[in-house]
Amino acid sequence: MCLIEENDRVNSVNNSSRYVIGIDIGGTNTKFGIVNSEGVIMVQGSMSTTGYPVFGDYVEQVCLELEKMIGKCGLEGHIQAVGIGAPNANFHEGTIESAPNLEWKGVVPLAKTFSVRLGLPVRVSNDANAAALGEMLYGTARGMGNFIVLTLGTGVGGGVVANGKLVSGHDGLAGELGHVIIDNSPDARVCGCGRAGCLEAYCSASGIARTADMMLAYTDTPSLLRNIEAPLSAEDIFLAAEQDDKIAKDIFEYTGNILGKALANFIAILNPEAIIIFGGVSKAGGYLLEPVRRAIDDNVLPILKGKTQLLVSTLKDSDAAILGASAIAW
Amino acid sequence: MCLIEENDRVNSVNNSSRYVIGIDIGGTNTKFGIVNSEGVIMVQGSMSTTGYPVFGDYVEQVCLELEKMIGKCGLEGHIQAVGIGAPNANFHEGTIESAPNLEWKGVVPLAKTFSVRLGLPVRVSNDANAAALGEMLYGTARGMGNFIVLTLGTGVGGGVVANGKLVSGHDGLAGELGHVIIDNSPDARVCGCGRAGCLEAYCSASGIARTADMMLAYTDTPSLLRNIEAPLSAEDIFLAAEQDDKIAKDIFEYTGNILGKALANFIAILNPEAIIIFGGVSKAGGYLLEPVRRAIDDNVLPILKGKTQLLVSTLKDSDAAILGASAIAW
Repeated sequence: MCLIEENDRVNSVNNSSRYVIGIDIGGTNTKFGIVNSEGVIMVQGSMSTTGYPVFGDYVEQVCLELEKMIGKCGLEGHIQAVGIGAPNANFHEGTIESAPNLEWKGVVPLAKTFSVRLGLPVRVSNDANAAALGEMLYGTARGMGNFIVLTLGTGVGGGVVANGKLVSGHDGLAGELGHVIIDNSPDARVCGCGRAGCLEAYCSASGIARTADMMLAYTDTPSLLRNIEAPLSAEDIFLAAEQDDKIAKDIFEYTGNILGKALANFIAILNPEAIIIFGGVSKAGGYLLEPVRRAIDDNVLPILKGKTQLLVSTLKDSDAAILGASAIAW
Repeated sequence: MCLIEENDRVNSVNNSSRYVIGIDIGGTNTKFGIVNSEGVIMVQGSMSTTGYPVFGDYVEQVCLELEKMIGKCGLEGHIQAVGIGAPNANFHEGTIESAPNLEWKGVVPLAKTFSVRLGLPVRVSNDANAAALGEMLYGTARGMGNFIVLTLGTGVGGGVVANGKLVSGHDGLAGELGHVIIDNSPDARVCGCGRAGCLEAYCSASGIARTADMMLAYTDTPSLLRNIEAPLSAEDIFLAAEQDDKIAKDIFEYTGNILGKALANFIAILNPEAIIIFGGVSKAGGYLLEPVRRAIDDNVLPILKGKTQLLVSTLKDSDAAILGASAIAW
């Protein structure tokens, strides 16, 4: 099933304007939309990512949906390019490489397949890098030349912008901020990447749920969280914190302290103007951000103290993925 | 006292060529030279950095030496710009900010003072960033767009190049790779910056000497190092390792393991083509580099494995500081 929603402004389509398509490939759903040069999503839709074991079948289905959209808006011949955000995407090669959360194994020729099918130039980036470009073009980072976007969701991803350009690295694989090892001790948490001690194992949604399990198991402190069936979500913990639940607040304190120490290190390396937090976990607001800020201040190199703003993305969640993907296309 | 050495090629000075001055301000000595556009140091000199409590007196002395040099080479009117590498230098502001190893306290208007005195444009960068530019223009990183230079000496410094440009950060303070905290435990080593657990506290020359003291104190293993008066230098330890001294080799193993783990994290963030090791400690060669390589391979994110070369700078030690500083000027 495909859902297509039109923006109120779809009627104001101007055929002399420039448009691109943004596609965000998630492990569960694929979102897509047509975006104009002001960053307005004219029309958007979504479909399931799963259920297409053959990659070509998936591409065909996405393209059919896109063509329907383009036709509906009367934009045939006016789309300039396509940007795709996907996990484990290689910016330089235009491929997805061994993404653990997708059905297609090995190296998938993402850009090439879409480009041939649609007859349009296609650029590809990992979802966190796309988020960084989206923030720079349309969001909190407008006008900034040096910043970091950290996506806190199912995983922890990163996008680094320096000198006004996305840092994609030599192989298009830069920005793996969730896979910086922050605990080298023998009891570091195992991460989904197969190693141990990664930031993601502590600060992703599932990392936070693990912290919750640990705190609930090792103390007798009463908590609203004891009444909720596992796995706990970041939202469950946020709602409990709103009720002044000590364990819930301790969970964010613990997570924020770890995250802030990691960010202090990123600041030493990159001296960014801002670090922009994006994704589901960022909804915890001050419960998470205050300990993060404290840990940055307590741990950052003195000459860099107070130089980096900690911000939360202002892009609407439902729009951000498509805007980010579209930003790659411009 | 000032020492001036002429390059054999000084006679081939061609007045249609382009020349810049490179000045490297170290805690002990200041080195300077005239460099042509091919990266040849036409003439170079050095003088003491200490003994000038008034900053203006120091600048005057350096400029007198430079004018002597320029006159000697017949290059009056042919110098295009000046590049200065200095500790705690701010690339954007052209200042030195609270450098612990220099006599001038607070914010020193480095670029402005030299520029007014010499009537030339002056660019400033910290010494490790200068080293990165030097490697890109004249050294091991020629043709590379994404790499890291790590200077291992009295301190540990860093220079990051991404998309072919130096990453100087929002405030010109990026690249503080020696002040990434790699040990958060309560028994982490205190660092010169006032915090604890910085990479510099383990991998600088003095950090390695501290490791040596620790290993000699906590074991009874016989070692050539027991006959050498403290503080041990990286060279002492290298020479002992060459005699198959177990403790000496263990010191480099310990240091290399810590360094490699830190580099694996830098690789996750920046996906560089190469990491270039520069400075006195890099003279330990394979004794240090083999454990570094092993620790990178054991700790790097699987998709990034084998993507980054570990190289040692090929610039001559005596030339590198001046070439690096001159690279800022171009």
